[in-house]
Amino acid sequence: MSEDNRAPVTVLGLGSMGRALAEAFLRAGHPTTVWNRSAAKAAPLVARGASHAPDVRVAVAASPLVVACLTTYDATLEALAPAAADLPGRDLVTVNSGTPAGARRMAAWATGHGARFLDGAVKNVPAAVGRPDTLLYYSGDRAVFDDHEATLRALGGDTVHLGEEADLAALYEMAVGGTLLPALLGFFQGAAMVTARGLEASTLVPYTVKWLEMIGSVLPDLAEEIDTGDYTEPASSIGIFHAAVAEERLLGREAGVDASWQEPMYDLLERAVAEGRAEHSVSALVELLRRRPRAA
Amino acid sequence: MSEDNRAPVTVLGLGSMGRALAEAFLRAGHPTTVWNRSAAKAAPLVARGASHAPDVRVAVAASPLVVACLTTYDATLEALAPAAADLPGRDLVTVNSGTPAGARRMAAWATGHGARFLDGAVKNVPAAVGRPDTLLYYSGDRAVFDDHEATLRALGGDTVHLGEEADLAALYEMAVGGTLLPALLGFFQGAAMVTARGLEASTLVPYTVKWLEMIGSVLPDLAEEIDTGDYTEPASSIGIFHAAVAEERLLGREAGVDASWQEPMYDLLERAVAEGRAEHSVSALVELLRRRPRAA
Ligand SMILES: NC(=O)c1ccc[n+]([C@@H]2O[C@H](COP(=O)([O-])OP(=O)(O)OC[C@H]3O[C@@H](n4cnc5c(N)ncnc54)[C@H](OP(=O)(O)O)[C@@H]3O)[C@@H](O)[C@H]2O)c1
Ligand SMILES: NC(=O)c1ccc[n+]([C@@H]2O[C@H](COP(=O)([O-])OP(=O)(O)OC[C@H]3O[C@@H](n4cnc5c(N)ncnc54)[C@H](OP(=O)(O)O)[C@@H]3O)[C@@H](O)[C@H]2O)c1
Repeated sequence: MSEDNRAPVTVLGLGSMGRALAEAFLRAGHPTTVWNRSAAKAAPLVARGASHAPDVRVAVAASPLVVACLTTYDATLEALAPAAADLPGRDLVTVNSGTPAGARRMAAWATGHGARFLDGAVKNVPAAVGRPDTLLYYSGDRAVFDDHEATLRALGGDTVHLGEEADLAALYEMAVGGTLLPALLGFFQGAAMVTARGLEASTLVPYTVKWLEMIGSVLPDLAEEIDTGDYTEPASSIGIFHAAVAEERLLGREAGVDASWQEPMYDLLERAVAEGRAEHSVSALVELLRRRPRAA
Repeated sequence: MSEDNRAPVTVLGLGSMGRALAEAFLRAGHPTTVWNRSAAKAAPLVARGASHAPDVRVAVAASPLVVACLTTYDATLEALAPAAADLPGRDLVTVNSGTPAGARRMAAWATGHGARFLDGAVKNVPAAVGRPDTLLYYSGDRAVFDDHEATLRALGGDTVHLGEEADLAALYEMAVGGTLLPALLGFFQGAAMVTARGLEASTLVPYTVKWLEMIGSVLPDLAEEIDTGDYTEPASSIGIFHAAVAEERLLGREAGVDASWQEPMYDLLERAVAEGRAEHSVSALVELLRRRPRAA
């Protein structure tokens, strides 16, 4: 192991995710200092060899690399405020969720107080932290990423720097993460349908997993259509999706399921057809999403 | 190859999917008879060795196994009506989309006219037909499935019989397929966000593919919660999703994206929290989807 692999690191915030991060650093052999607002959460990590910092100033002073995993940027700003004077010479990495504007505010505050700054996101659940294929991406000061890449890789083998702009990770986090709730609701609706028939939701899982793989496999072509703006050679047209709407509405009723959360999606398809896009690829729906919401 | 692999087969309907099915049968060496309402679509298949049936009666008479891939059950009923008298002794397999009620109507009509009947669904795009991992599932007369399994496997190596009830394939088709439009819209919204920043939609693809894998990996636990009705030990709580709503709304505005299609999903989260489910697993949303829509 290189020396980097043993670099000391501080973890601020020991919720589900922060705790997983600290455990991964400890497993990889990094001297790890931990701090949490409610101190009790440090105990299981101290039992695994972490040092407990009694306050955030001690925590920040303890390691050149400080990884913060609090709920939001605002929470992070609030928690770090008492340690502002300790930031010069520190490299701060935040991995909470938030908007790009929040990331920019966070970056301005951190660099304004003399720290170098990197924002990141863990694209997985806490249990996956530390695995070789777990994805984390970062954006901001490339030198911070380069200096600590080996350490950060302890959190997941698929560790990527997206670019110098500090808000890119937050942008991608929300652009990628936005698929989660809709996809889960699609699955829950399917589960409501099969359980209404007395079948188990778990019988759906292998088919849905395969279906998600299929969806992943068509994304490169859809992305290319979006990037070129050429929607005229569709593998799946808006018209095909639109034709299915009537049946989906019917099925919702037939299966005793409340599918009304899908209505705005059907409206999008109807608007797209009304605009003469029936023969366009379904990816042309991006053009309708680009518009600002019409007045309610 | 066994004799089964060479069994003759008729394909009705030569749209994108029907054509792919016929090509797969031809590639696997099956004597293949094809028929399409507009006869011109048969030409490329005849060039590959298919026999062209001039009308649907000849097509049905040509092979013991008849696979129909028209747009809907109604279209299939209409197209097959002239061949009703030719159905005794035939095994009819439909693989169009449609509701379970449609599948039951189709099954009643086919068996009423003396055919054996199996309904199925191709869970993939036409280009994937014939691949070893492509999934097709069927339901209905198990004997039909057993008699033709080797032939049907030419369409995809992952070929499954779901049960004797003819409408199960349609039920699973819609229960599984219901994830597609929501997941795609999630991706398109992300694409709208990154392209608004001057970045390419294709840069999102590898991250979204990984994200879809992550979603697939949590489905077994979510399905188990749904099947046991125990939502009290969540990996991801409704509260966590609910807390993100405010930021997602903000981001939509910040990124100049029309995220209004997500509003009913946010409403579901708000209703769930109002019902005291904040600490429950996100899978408890299934309980809200089980209700019939409230009067508009
Ligand atoms: N859990 C996941 O599956 C997951 C996955 C990917 C990303 N994330 C992101 O990771 C971040 C943390 O999530 P989590 O699941 O670890 O959340 P969590 O379990 O709720 O923990 C939240 C942490 O933030 C701290 N905190 C909140 N407000 C604070 C404040 N004003 N001052 C000081 N500390 C404060 C909490 O301290 P106390 O203990 O004192 O309350 C706790 O350590 C979030 O942005 C989340 O979106 C989570
Ligand atoms: N394409 C896919 O990616 C895909 C994937 C999975 C499942 N599916 C399902 O497969 C089925 C067929 O899809 P497709 O993509 O092949 O559709 P398509 O390209 O639009 O072809 C539709 C076929 O149905 C025929 N047809 C429609 N109404 C008819 C009628 N009244 N009488 C006789 N023939 C009629 C058409 O004949 P004409 O040529 O004479 O119009 C054509 O052969 C659909 O249920 C679809 O949901 C498709």
